[in-house]
Amino acid sequence: MDDLTDPHKHSAPDADGTANPVLVEVVRGPMVESRHRGAIAVVAPDGTVVHAIGDVEREMYPRSAIKPVQALPLIETGAADAFGFGDVEIALSCASHLGEARHVAAVRNMLKKAGARPDQFECGPQPPSGTAAEHELVSAGEPFQAIHNNCSGKHAGMIASALHKGESPTGYTEVTHPVQQRVLGVFESMTGCDLGRAPRGIDGCSVPVWAMPLGNLALAMARMADPSDQPETRQAATARIRAAMAAEPFYIHGSNAFGTDVIAAAGPDVLVKGGAEGVYTAILPALGLGVALKIDDGASRAAELAMIHTLEGLGALDDSQRKALAERLRPVQTNWAGTAVGELRPTAALTF
Amino acid sequence: MDDLTDPHKHSAPDADGTANPVLVEVVRGPMVESRHRGAIAVVAPDGTVVHAIGDVEREMYPRSAIKPVQALPLIETGAADAFGFGDVEIALSCASHLGEARHVAAVRNMLKKAGARPDQFECGPQPPSGTAAEHELVSAGEPFQAIHNNCSGKHAGMIASALHKGESPTGYTEVTHPVQQRVLGVFESMTGCDLGRAPRGIDGCSVPVWAMPLGNLALAMARMADPSDQPETRQAATARIRAAMAAEPFYIHGSNAFGTDVIAAAGPDVLVKGGAEGVYTAILPALGLGVALKIDDGASRAAELAMIHTLEGLGALDDSQRKALAERLRPVQTNWAGTAVGELRPTAALTF
Repeated sequence: MDDLTDPHKHSAPDADGTANPVLVEVVRGPMVESRHRGAIAVVAPDGTVVHAIGDVEREMYPRSAIKPVQALPLIETGAADAFGFGDVEIALSCASHLGEARHVAAVRNMLKKAGARPDQFECGPQPPSGTAAEHELVSAGEPFQAIHNNCSGKHAGMIASALHKGESPTGYTEVTHPVQQRVLGVFESMTGCDLGRAPRGIDGCSVPVWAMPLGNLALAMARMADPSDQPETRQAATARIRAAMAAEPFYIHGSNAFGTDVIAAAGPDVLVKGGAEGVYTAILPALGLGVALKIDDGASRAAELAMIHTLEGLGALDDSQRKALAERLRPVQTNWAGTAVGELRPTAALTF
Repeated sequence: MDDLTDPHKHSAPDADGTANPVLVEVVRGPMVESRHRGAIAVVAPDGTVVHAIGDVEREMYPRSAIKPVQALPLIETGAADAFGFGDVEIALSCASHLGEARHVAAVRNMLKKAGARPDQFECGPQPPSGTAAEHELVSAGEPFQAIHNNCSGKHAGMIASALHKGESPTGYTEVTHPVQQRVLGVFESMTGCDLGRAPRGIDGCSVPVWAMPLGNLALAMARMADPSDQPETRQAATARIRAAMAAEPFYIHGSNAFGTDVIAAAGPDVLVKGGAEGVYTAILPALGLGVALKIDDGASRAAELAMIHTLEGLGALDDSQRKALAERLRPVQTNWAGTAVGELRPTAALTF
């Protein structure tokens, strides 16, 4: 078993290297049509790599799958308390929501509580990610706005923390702004990585995204699950985020969406969060573990299937939870006429 | 160099096998974020494999990328002539259109010419694949119908060929229907495969889809490019399909869509056709070659990038065509705020 607490081990080159194993197969009729490769890290809070499938030292961008960690400064600065944020607002600050009417109304309310305005958003306008929500706006002749962006709850939280600290929110998405510097500090202490030297890109919603080894993302999630080696403020903040995610799963993702369905069925001991380009994480408090996975090609369909089978393989789901998530465990593919034409399935490599 | 005319060589097992090379990288900031593997076959009409990248003997489903071949029976039965089909109708019978108003009107006209009705479609209702077209329908409060299905032109052609032959079109998507048996015959003679023993699935639009080695799909495309070893009827039919694709590229794909843009810029000597799950083909008459590629994970973004760099690598594009397709050759990725955050790029494996 590896130990992720030694930072000098984790300078894996950005090379093609050895191919990660095929984790998910897309089957049509009697044949595998497409294949998704990837890596999965299951890590304990002390940095022990409990399970590693594929190259868990390869650097990757955590994207939105790290949002529960990214939300810590909102709590730790005292902003959430000062503005009276409850579970809904804290869940939204960790969310990639589908832009449904209830999400948007709640983000609007969150801005109001913080004394902030929609024109302070720097995340750019995005059509709602939910088809029904998108069609609703189109039918109403309304434009897509920044508040519909799947990250608008996170951005409302970032603006709130700036206002609470007496900082101008202008430029809060810039790496030099105190908002992002606080995020960087939290990322470094939770992942155990020196991110000042890490590759850095710009995320879909304009905030910085730092690369880290997959195993270190899992370590951050393990510390979210069991923060007993962290300072008391951090312990309280992680507890509050876990409680909010478990209490308000709808605000984490949306109607008929994987993140919401899994947390609704299996929370509070299974708290999952997805990100763009095939990333998914899980905070598993009962097991005291953190999970991070990345599909090499960036496909969400494979990330979701790999995550649910990781949860199954780790024994994180009981019988009734497995039953509630049966369609997620064995997704049937239907065509436009409604005929079953195939399925997604895990490979033997996805075994724990 | 391999020879694909020996059918006994092509019983590659449906196994994971050796990993295909990474062909396309998705870059964010200074780092590769996602990677797409795949295989590319470039084949001459005599079955010579001119270039093979990755495993070109692995069986795959050609999906919609084989539509130009699938349209041959429409011409060869005499149906296209009998119903007065011109370039637009023949292009539509090879198309995966975006369901834009002009596509739908033209398919409606095609049905009318053939004396067919929309309720004879068996492809199932699909929202238009073009966002603008989808929003137009939603705004107008109109339901998505089978005629909006990207395959509706192909289906109109299939119904037309049944009517012309005096067959009931009912069940024309079933493998036992004469329409599909004619398609099977054309597939076998053009690919050189005995498809009776091949894995068979159901396509997104409900017609049968037969698996074949990637190289044999490329061979069929090579014979579309240079059918000089084919019977005269076939030679005439391929010429008519090539001419229709080149004359009416809008009807092959749609506004700002890869297939249309490439043919509009580089036709009639470059005729490309995409399919679901990361498949793309090219008919290259001037070079006398056929191309087929499959991205292992099924991603369209990678299939398109791999195709344009294959065309570039084979010398199929001249300077002005390269200039017209510059954004396709080096696609910049922008985020919701419009900031450039990365790009798609070919790897060194994608070299000819």
